[in-house]
Amino acid sequence: MMHKKLELPEETDEVRITLAHGSGGKAMRDLVENEILPYFTNPLLSPLEDQARIPLHSFGPLGDRMAMTTDSFVVDPLFFPGGDIGSLAINGTVNDLVMCGAMPLYMTCGLIIEEGLPLSTLRAVLASMQKAADDAGVFIVSGDTKVVHKGAADKLFINTAGIGVVPKFVDIRADAARAGDVVIVNGSVGDHGATVMAARGDLALDADLRSDCRSLHQEVNTLLASAQVRCLRDASRGGIATVLNEFAESSGVRIVLDQHAVPVRDEVRGVCELLGLDPLYLANEGKFVAIVPADQAEEAVKALRKHPGAEQAAIIGRVETVSESRPYAGVSMQTTFGSERMIDMLAGDQLPRIC
Amino acid sequence: MMHKKLELPEETDEVRITLAHGSGGKAMRDLVENEILPYFTNPLLSPLEDQARIPLHSFGPLGDRMAMTTDSFVVDPLFFPGGDIGSLAINGTVNDLVMCGAMPLYMTCGLIIEEGLPLSTLRAVLASMQKAADDAGVFIVSGDTKVVHKGAADKLFINTAGIGVVPKFVDIRADAARAGDVVIVNGSVGDHGATVMAARGDLALDADLRSDCRSLHQEVNTLLASAQVRCLRDASRGGIATVLNEFAESSGVRIVLDQHAVPVRDEVRGVCELLGLDPLYLANEGKFVAIVPADQAEEAVKALRKHPGAEQAAIIGRVETVSESRPYAGVSMQTTFGSERMIDMLAGDQLPRIC
Repeated sequence: MMHKKLELPEETDEVRITLAHGSGGKAMRDLVENEILPYFTNPLLSPLEDQARIPLHSFGPLGDRMAMTTDSFVVDPLFFPGGDIGSLAINGTVNDLVMCGAMPLYMTCGLIIEEGLPLSTLRAVLASMQKAADDAGVFIVSGDTKVVHKGAADKLFINTAGIGVVPKFVDIRADAARAGDVVIVNGSVGDHGATVMAARGDLALDADLRSDCRSLHQEVNTLLASAQVRCLRDASRGGIATVLNEFAESSGVRIVLDQHAVPVRDEVRGVCELLGLDPLYLANEGKFVAIVPADQAEEAVKALRKHPGAEQAAIIGRVETVSESRPYAGVSMQTTFGSERMIDMLAGDQLPRIC
Repeated sequence: MMHKKLELPEETDEVRITLAHGSGGKAMRDLVENEILPYFTNPLLSPLEDQARIPLHSFGPLGDRMAMTTDSFVVDPLFFPGGDIGSLAINGTVNDLVMCGAMPLYMTCGLIIEEGLPLSTLRAVLASMQKAADDAGVFIVSGDTKVVHKGAADKLFINTAGIGVVPKFVDIRADAARAGDVVIVNGSVGDHGATVMAARGDLALDADLRSDCRSLHQEVNTLLASAQVRCLRDASRGGIATVLNEFAESSGVRIVLDQHAVPVRDEVRGVCELLGLDPLYLANEGKFVAIVPADQAEEAVKALRKHPGAEQAAIIGRVETVSESRPYAGVSMQTTFGSERMIDMLAGDQLPRIC
C-alpha cells in the first residue's frame, strides 16, 4: 500500500461562507440564487417559493403508491476516491427509493454549513450533486440552507428527502424471504467503508480503493425484469450482514452465506485485515442484497453483470427454514475452511461518519 | 426585565447517545425501535423499511397538486419559552406547506445527534415533535438517525421534509400582489426571534417573552375561506421585512407599511431597543404575511382574530404601483412621526441559529 494524496478542490482564502449566508436576508438570497440554484435549475425549483408544487396527475401513470424517504449525510472526509458528500446525498436517497421498486422523481436538499467553509468546496459538492441527480433522473425541487458558527458543525452536512412512485404489483418487503430462495449481491462488498476509512487523515494508508457510490435504479430495473424479488435493500451502514439479519428476523428464516462466494476486492480485504474489520459489516453505497427464488437467480445475476460496476454480481447464500436443531432466525456463514459461524448484527460502533 | 431560569428537561449522566447509536447496527436499531418509533407510531412508519409507501389514491380527493418542502433546524438553545427544536421542526415544515394552501400530510425526520447528548434531552424533543405533529394532523413516515463525534455538531440538528396536497383552484404566489391590495399579518411580530435571543446563555435578560411557534393550518384555512389570497408566506428568518420585499420584487409593486399598525409586543420592543434590533427583521414561527384585496381584508382579519394567538391580526400596509416619482419595487414604512423610511431586505447577519 502506498500513501497517495487525495485530490481535493482547491481551497482559496478569498470567498468563504459567513453567518450572513444563513440569515434569511439578502446574503442568503444571493447565495441561493447565484451559487446553489444554477446547479439544480428546473421549473419546480426556480420560483424559489417555500415549497414546490407538483401536478398530481403526473404520478398516476407511473404506479399506485408514493415512496418517501430521507437521509442525512455527515461523511468525513467530504471528498474521497469515487465520490463525495454530494454524490452520496443524491445516490443514497435515490437508492432508498429504488429499493422498493420505486421510480425516483423529486428530492429536497437541506444544507447545514459551518461558517468559514470555502465557497469552492460548496461549489464542488453542488456540482457533484447535480451530476448524480442528472444520472439518476431526479429533480431537486425544494431546499433550505442553514449556516452555523465555526465549531458548531463539521464543515458540511446534507439532508436529502425524496419521493418516487412504485409501479403496480411490485411488492418488495423485508419479511418475504422463504426457504429455498437464494441471496444475490450486485458486486463486491465493503468498497465504500474501506475507502472512507483509508481517506481519513489519521490513517496513512491508501490502497487502490474506490467507493462504489452510485445510483442503482437501472440495476434494480434489470433485477425486477429478470426475477420475482422478495426482499431488496441497499447495504449501506452496517453492511450486508446487517441487511441480511433484518431479512432473516423479519421473515423468520435462516440465511446461510457461502464465504467463498461473497465478492470482496483484494484491496478491501487488505484494509480489513490491517484494521481488524469484517467486510460483511462495511458500508456500501452502490450495493444491494436481494432475495429471489432459486430458479430465477442465475438469470438475474447474468443480467446484472452487464451493468458497469456490477460485473461481480453473485449468488452468495441461501434461505433455510428455522429447524429444531437451529431454532433461531439469523444469519450464518460457511467459511472457506468448512466451518460455520454466526453473523450477528453489528453490535458496536465500527465506523462512524461513513455516510 | 428580570432574569428567569429556563426550565430544561433534567439531564442525567446515566444514558447518553454514543457513536454506536449511529452505526447502522444493533445499537441504532434499539434506539430507533425503543426510543424514537414509540413517539411516531403509525402504519406507514412502523415497518421500518427504508422508505414509506403511501397509496396514491389517497391524495386525489384532496387536490390536484402535491406540495413538497424541507427545512433543517439548528436553533440554539434547543429549548426556549414557547417551544423547542422539536416543535419548531414540525411546525416550520407544516407552515411551509400550509403557505401555498396545501393540507400537510406526511413528513420525514432526519436527526443529526452529537455524541454525548443525554437521552432525556432527545426524549423531550421527540415528545415535543409528537405533540406538534398530532396538533397539525401530520404523520412522520420515514426517518434517519446519524451520530457524529463530540464537537462535530452542536447537540442536535433536525431536518424535516414534508408533502401535502394543494386543493384545486388555490393559486398563491409571490408575484400576484396588485396595487390596491392590502397587507395582513396574523399577530405580533418578532416574538420568536426576541425569545431565542433572550434565552441564549450569553444574554442575562429575560423579559416575559414567548416564541409564537405553532402550526398555522387552521388560520390559513380561515384566511382562504374569507378572502382571495394573492400572496402568503410565513415570516420566519428575515422577518416580515424580508417576506414583503420578496413580494414587492416578485410582483413589481411598492408595499407601504403603517408603523402604527404593525403589532409588536412591548417586551419584544424592549429587547429590540436594548440590542439595537428591528422587530420587522426578527424571525417569527407562527406568523404569516398575506396580501389580499382591500375590500376583503377587514372580514379576514376579524375571522383570524378568533384563533388563539392571532388576536392581534391586523391590516398593516397597502400595495401601490411603481410610479415615476417612486420608480423601484420595494417596501417602505410610514413612521409614527409621519416620515417614510425604506425597509430593505436584511443585509447582514442579524441572528444566527434562530431556527
